[in-house]
Amino acid sequence: MSRIFLRHGIVLTIDDCDAYYPDGCIVIEHEKLIFVGEDAQHPGIHPEDSVLDMRGKLIMPGLINTHVHSHSPLFRNFGEDVPLQVWLNDIMWPAESHMTEEHAYYAALHTCLEFISSGVTTFADQFYFADAVARAVEKSGLRAFLCSSIFENGKSERGQTVQTAADFIAAWKGRNPLITPGLGPHAPYSVSAEQWRSIVALSQATHTLIHTHISETKTENRKSFAEKGESPTKWLESLGVFSCPTLAAHCIYLSDEDIAVFRNHNVHVSYNPVSNLKLVSGIMPYLKLKTAGVQISLGTDGAQSNNTLDLLQDLKLAVLIQKQKENDPAFFSVFDAVRLVTIEGAKALGLDSVIGTLEAGKQADLIALDIQQPHLQPLHTDSIQMLYTMLVYCASGKDVTDAMVQGTWLMKDREILTLDVHSVLHNTADISEQLRKKAGLTGD
Amino acid sequence: MSRIFLRHGIVLTIDDCDAYYPDGCIVIEHEKLIFVGEDAQHPGIHPEDSVLDMRGKLIMPGLINTHVHSHSPLFRNFGEDVPLQVWLNDIMWPAESHMTEEHAYYAALHTCLEFISSGVTTFADQFYFADAVARAVEKSGLRAFLCSSIFENGKSERGQTVQTAADFIAAWKGRNPLITPGLGPHAPYSVSAEQWRSIVALSQATHTLIHTHISETKTENRKSFAEKGESPTKWLESLGVFSCPTLAAHCIYLSDEDIAVFRNHNVHVSYNPVSNLKLVSGIMPYLKLKTAGVQISLGTDGAQSNNTLDLLQDLKLAVLIQKQKENDPAFFSVFDAVRLVTIEGAKALGLDSVIGTLEAGKQADLIALDIQQPHLQPLHTDSIQMLYTMLVYCASGKDVTDAMVQGTWLMKDREILTLDVHSVLHNTADISEQLRKKAGLTGD
Repeated sequence: MSRIFLRHGIVLTIDDCDAYYPDGCIVIEHEKLIFVGEDAQHPGIHPEDSVLDMRGKLIMPGLINTHVHSHSPLFRNFGEDVPLQVWLNDIMWPAESHMTEEHAYYAALHTCLEFISSGVTTFADQFYFADAVARAVEKSGLRAFLCSSIFENGKSERGQTVQTAADFIAAWKGRNPLITPGLGPHAPYSVSAEQWRSIVALSQATHTLIHTHISETKTENRKSFAEKGESPTKWLESLGVFSCPTLAAHCIYLSDEDIAVFRNHNVHVSYNPVSNLKLVSGIMPYLKLKTAGVQISLGTDGAQSNNTLDLLQDLKLAVLIQKQKENDPAFFSVFDAVRLVTIEGAKALGLDSVIGTLEAGKQADLIALDIQQPHLQPLHTDSIQMLYTMLVYCASGKDVTDAMVQGTWLMKDREILTLDVHSVLHNTADISEQLRKKAGLTGD
Repeated sequence: MSRIFLRHGIVLTIDDCDAYYPDGCIVIEHEKLIFVGEDAQHPGIHPEDSVLDMRGKLIMPGLINTHVHSHSPLFRNFGEDVPLQVWLNDIMWPAESHMTEEHAYYAALHTCLEFISSGVTTFADQFYFADAVARAVEKSGLRAFLCSSIFENGKSERGQTVQTAADFIAAWKGRNPLITPGLGPHAPYSVSAEQWRSIVALSQATHTLIHTHISETKTENRKSFAEKGESPTKWLESLGVFSCPTLAAHCIYLSDEDIAVFRNHNVHVSYNPVSNLKLVSGIMPYLKLKTAGVQISLGTDGAQSNNTLDLLQDLKLAVLIQKQKENDPAFFSVFDAVRLVTIEGAKALGLDSVIGTLEAGKQADLIALDIQQPHLQPLHTDSIQMLYTMLVYCASGKDVTDAMVQGTWLMKDREILTLDVHSVLHNTADISEQLRKKAGLTGD
C-alpha cells in the first residue's frame, strides 16, 4: 500500500516532551502514523508513495471537542438576549419539538461540515435520533462518540429513551471503528434514579461511555439539595454512575467533596466556557479541578448557546477568563491550553493511546493550518512557546486548511472532500426555516 | 465620474432605525454613498458605471477600532504566561528600546494589513514615530487617528515628546483627509502635570484629540490617591484635560464620581476586553458607564496583549464577559454590540457625521463578509435580530472579503490591493527577529 508523506511542514506532536519539528515530516501507512520527525530523517520514499509539500503550514493533532449537540446549527442565532427560561420555554423547546429523524440527519451533516472546516476531527455528541446522527457522521468521515440522549419527562413513556439508547448501542457497537456509541442521560435533574440505574447496568454490560451534564447552574444544585439532600455529584455517585466511564459537561458548581468524587472515580470534565458565559451559568473552577488532579478537556456545547462550533477560537476565551478569575496572568500556560483540545480530549474518551498526539503507531488524525497570514505572523519557529502561543491566542478554526482522520483526507486546501457543502447548507437552511415557522418565531 | 454599484448584497446600514435590505444596493460616487436601499429602487445605471454583484455577501460599515499600538505585531507572542512586571521589564521594554523609525514604519504596514484583512477601516493609534506610522497608513489607504505618544521618563529630555507631537501635528494636519494627527499622552501616571498642561494647550491650539490610558489597573489608582490625593480622572479634570476632546482607553477602575466627570465632559471610553483579561487588569464596568450616558466603543489594544487585531472576534468576548459580570443573559443586546464597532467608534473620533453607518451623504467606508460559510448558516434574512446576532456571535474578521475606504477598494474578494502581503510579512518577520535577539529573548 502506498504511503503518504507530508513534508516540510512545522510539526507539533503535543507528546509528553512537546517534541516539534520546524522542518518536519509525517509518514502515514495503513491509517496510521509510521514516522513523525525531522524531514532530514524521514524514511526512503518509494515511487508509489504520495508526497505533499506542506511548507507554510503547521501540522498538529486533529482537535477533539468533548461536548456538542449535533442538531444545534438548526437553531443558530434563534432568540438572543432573552432570559434563560424564555429562551428554553418559548424558543428552543417549541422549535425542537417539531424535529424529525430526517432533520437530525441533515443537522448532523451541518455540524460535521463545521467541524471539518474548523479542524475538529473527533467529537462527543449528545442528542436524540442517534442512529440518524451516526449515519451522517459516517458519511462525513469524522470520528465521534455518539451518546443517545435520555431525558425523562411527562411526554416520554418511562424507559423508552433508555431502550432507544440500548438499540442504538446494539446497532452501532463495532460497526464502524470511527463511531463509538454511548449513553447520554441529560442530567441528574432530568433523569430519575430508576433510569440512572438502568443506564449504569447498560453501560456496564456494553462498556459504553456515559456523557451527561452536571452542576451547570446554581439552581440545579439548589434543587438537588432540596429534593435529594445532596449534591448532583454525590447523588450520582450513590447510584453507582461513576463506576462507569463518565464524561461530565459544564461542572461549574462543584464542592471540594464533589471534586474529590470526580478525582477518585476518574470522572472527566468537559469545560464549555462560551456557552457558560452566554447563559450566565458561571465560570468553571479550572484551577481547583486541575490542582485536584481531575482531567479536563474543552467543548463548544451546541450552536444554540455558543453560537459557533469553533473549538480553537473558544480556547482563547477559555484561558483568558480563567486568568482573570484567578487574578494571575502567569497562570494557565499555553502548553496546558493546547493539551485541552488534543490529548486531554483523547483521555476524556479513553482514546489517548490512539489519537490526541502525533506519534508513530497512533491513528493519523491530523490537521494543518495556513500560518502565512497577517494575524499569525511574525512567528519564530525556533520557539515552541511561541508556536503554542500562536495556537492559543491568534489562531482559530478558520485558519485550518486540511483535515485527516485515520489516514483519509476530509479537507484539503480548504476543499471539503466528504460532503457537498452547498447541498448541506441548503438543506439545513430549509429545515431551520420550517422549524422556525412551526414554532411561531418568524418576525422580529 | 463613473459610479460604483454594489448590487444584491444584504445591506446593514446600522442607522438609527436599523434599516437593512436583504436584497440591497449601494451606489458610490466621488468617495461618497449616494444611494443605500433596496436593489429594486436603485438609481439608473449608466454605461460607464462599475456594477458588482454582491450576492452571498453582507455589506456593513467598515469597523472602527478605537485603541491600538501600531508597532505591536513585532512583539506578537513574545513572552506569554509571565507576571505583568516581568513581561514589561524583561520582555516588552527591552525589545521596544531597540526600535527605530524604519521598524515603526514596517510594523505599521503590518498592522494596516491585519486591519484591512479583518474589516477595520478606521483606527485610533498611539505610538512613537508617528510620522513613520502616518506614511505607512497613507500607503495602506486606511483612515486613522494617529496620536504621537508622550511618555515622560528619565531618558527622555523634558518636553521632547511634546515637541515631537507638536511637529507631527504641524506636518500632518490637513495633509491627507484620511489621516488625523492627535496627541497620545501615555497615562496620568507617566506624564507630569507640567506636560499635561502643555498637551492641553497644544490640543486647544490645534483642535486635536487626546488619546490616553486611564485607570487600567488598581495599582494605578492606588498610586494616584497616594501621590496626588485624588483619582487619575479627577486629577486630569483639574488640569483641564477634559476641556479637550478625549478618548480614554481601558477605564476599568472608575468611581461614580469619575463616571460623572466622563459624562459631563463627554470623555469617550475605548473598551479593550481581551487585553484587560490577558493582563488580568479587570473587566470594565460597561453597564454603569452606559447607564450614566458615557459613550463607549471597542478597541483591540496592541497585539502584544491580545494577541491579534481582530475587532469583530473580540466583540463576542466583549459582550459575553459583561453578560456574566451582570449575571443577566438578556442584558447587552446585539444591537448595542454591533454599534460598539461602528457608529460608537465614529462618535469617539468625532466622525459620526462622516462614517460609522451606511447612509447617503456619508463617506463610502464599508466592508463585505462572505456569509455562505457553515459557521454563519443558516441565516434567515428576514430577521434583523438574526443578522446582528450572526455578526456578534458567529462572525470574525476572517469572514471579511472586501474593504473600501472613501470609495477606494483596499481589499476585494480577499485580495489586498494597496499593500504587498508577502513583502510586509517578510519585513516584519526580519525586524521582529532582530529585536528579539537584541533583547536576549531567543531560546525557550
